Amino acid sequence: MSVLIVGSTALDSIKTPHAENPRLLGGSASHAAVAASFFAPVKLVGVVGADFPKKYVALYKKHRIDLEGLQIQEGKTFHWSGEYEVNMNNRRTLLTELGVFEKFTPHLPDKFKRIPFVLLANIAPALQHHVLDQMTRPKFVVADTMDLWLNIALPDLLRLLPRVDGFVLNDSEAHQLTKQDNVFAALRTIHKLGPRYVIIKKGSHGSILSGPKGCFICPAYPLHNVVDPTGAGDSFVGGLMGYLSTSRGSVDSNIRRAMIHGSVAASFCCEGFGLTRTTRVNRAEINRRVRELEKLTKF
Amino acid sequence: MSVLIVGSTALDSIKTPHAENPRLLGGSASHAAVAASFFAPVKLVGVVGADFPKKYVALYKKHRIDLEGLQIQEGKTFHWSGEYEVNMNNRRTLLTELGVFEKFTPHLPDKFKRIPFVLLANIAPALQHHVLDQMTRPKFVVADTMDLWLNIALPDLLRLLPRVDGFVLNDSEAHQLTKQDNVFAALRTIHKLGPRYVIIKKGSHGSILSGPKGCFICPAYPLHNVVDPTGAGDSFVGGLMGYLSTSRGSVDSNIRRAMIHGSVAASFCCEGFGLTRTTRVNRAEINRRVRELEKLTKF
Repeated sequence: MSVLIVGSTALDSIKTPHAENPRLLGGSASHAAVAASFFAPVKLVGVVGADFPKKYVALYKKHRIDLEGLQIQEGKTFHWSGEYEVNMNNRRTLLTELGVFEKFTPHLPDKFKRIPFVLLANIAPALQHHVLDQMTRPKFVVADTMDLWLNIALPDLLRLLPRVDGFVLNDSEAHQLTKQDNVFAALRTIHKLGPRYVIIKKGSHGSILSGPKGCFICPAYPLHNVVDPTGAGDSFVGGLMGYLSTSRGSVDSNIRRAMIHGSVAASFCCEGFGLTRTTRVNRAEINRRVRELEKLTKF
Repeated sequence: MSVLIVGSTALDSIKTPHAENPRLLGGSASHAAVAASFFAPVKLVGVVGADFPKKYVALYKKHRIDLEGLQIQEGKTFHWSGEYEVNMNNRRTLLTELGVFEKFTPHLPDKFKRIPFVLLANIAPALQHHVLDQMTRPKFVVADTMDLWLNIALPDLLRLLPRVDGFVLNDSEAHQLTKQDNVFAALRTIHKLGPRYVIIKKGSHGSILSGPKGCFICPAYPLHNVVDPTGAGDSFVGGLMGYLSTSRGSVDSNIRRAMIHGSVAASFCCEGFGLTRTTRVNRAEINRRVRELEKLTKF
């Protein structure tokens, strides 16, 4: 089955202690869509400006991403610029030019409205609501978020949570949302806000799922060299939803392996600037890392 | 087979945001010995003062810990006092009274000198050397350490590493020792310093082993409520060595399950002040958590 991905489509200018790369293809929807494309047909909804490079449209197409929901508007594409510290964990935003993204309203082509798997990638909760308002009985909806929305749009986010099946956030966001220091206590609190599945991402420490069948401790794939972690979380949830949408059987019986595949997608993302490494990956390489993770966790 | 454990034996006065407990049984050797005692006969080497409470001697004995190597000297027992912050991760030392520990020289009774499994629990590297100098061809030696020794006794520690089979340290210590931010890069660097097995502890994020058969990503047991993490790392390595010393087959084939058992021992340690929870545990409870960890990581 297909997966619908709605989120930001952006140009990222990224600086690390080792290199600087301007105007890479970025945004939550771009990272998630490319990661999901290894497993499932992807329909993307987003907005770019007239300045959006043709090579990035070609890149989406290379991954057979359906772009009927990609709006191309007069004006500039959302441009984000950030700089990482030496440890590659802390980053600071140097610049945010919203451009056409400022007035973005996700509009779903009719043929997208019945897609069973829906990823509301990181984007304002009001827009995530607007997407759900247009959908007809999706089978499985997952929402991602970021600290910004916890700060400026918490009521919208709290209204969204009962409308989604799964909610994905990182550990510091879980702490911000629940005021709980303990990640398992935080998971319990977030369930009470609505979602049956809650996933807390912990970067290089992996992630934790809490769902109807209990918890799953998902490892991160071991990386000796992180080139650029931008988009790793988006790749994780994109890979997860892509895998889930094409697996036979129930969500319950597939979600653990889906997380593992998301974890592998995130590992490739970190190995290059922007999407440069991810777009060179094939399914065999993904499967190899999945098998490695099996070996790395077996006891 | 037996395991020999040499380290500190202390009284810990511990303050958390929720409670305060004075003069609990503590020290690296105490925590490691009690954790190991669930799996193997333990021989302890340490020093206490004349003020050492009889109830703590009884506690060691309840765990069938051989105390022939426990020196009782005129003077006061090593007393440490610390306070945890709300998140239960950061702590500050309020007081350190070395007492008889200041002039401690570990002296091994003859019958301890041929014990095959040796845990050099956290203690000055010079004393860890002194223990090894007295041993006759031990089968498997593991050393633990702490940031203090990296700061004030690094040359001694660097001379120790080629003498041990395994080295255990936490992630911040690994960073301090190797200047590497990446944990897998740090593991590689530490191998070059000598040990064939290197384990980096990451607290609630679990631990990572690097050994001749590759890496193992070991989960922490999920805890909803951490009462007092003091001694968790010591319990981990104590449980690991206890399990390893009584398992049939090679270290290579047992070390992953040994880490899992160490992880479970550490989880019990965190659930009570000092050793209060650990001493009430039985092997069936340990096995139950091991099985839970199997379920929590299976995919």
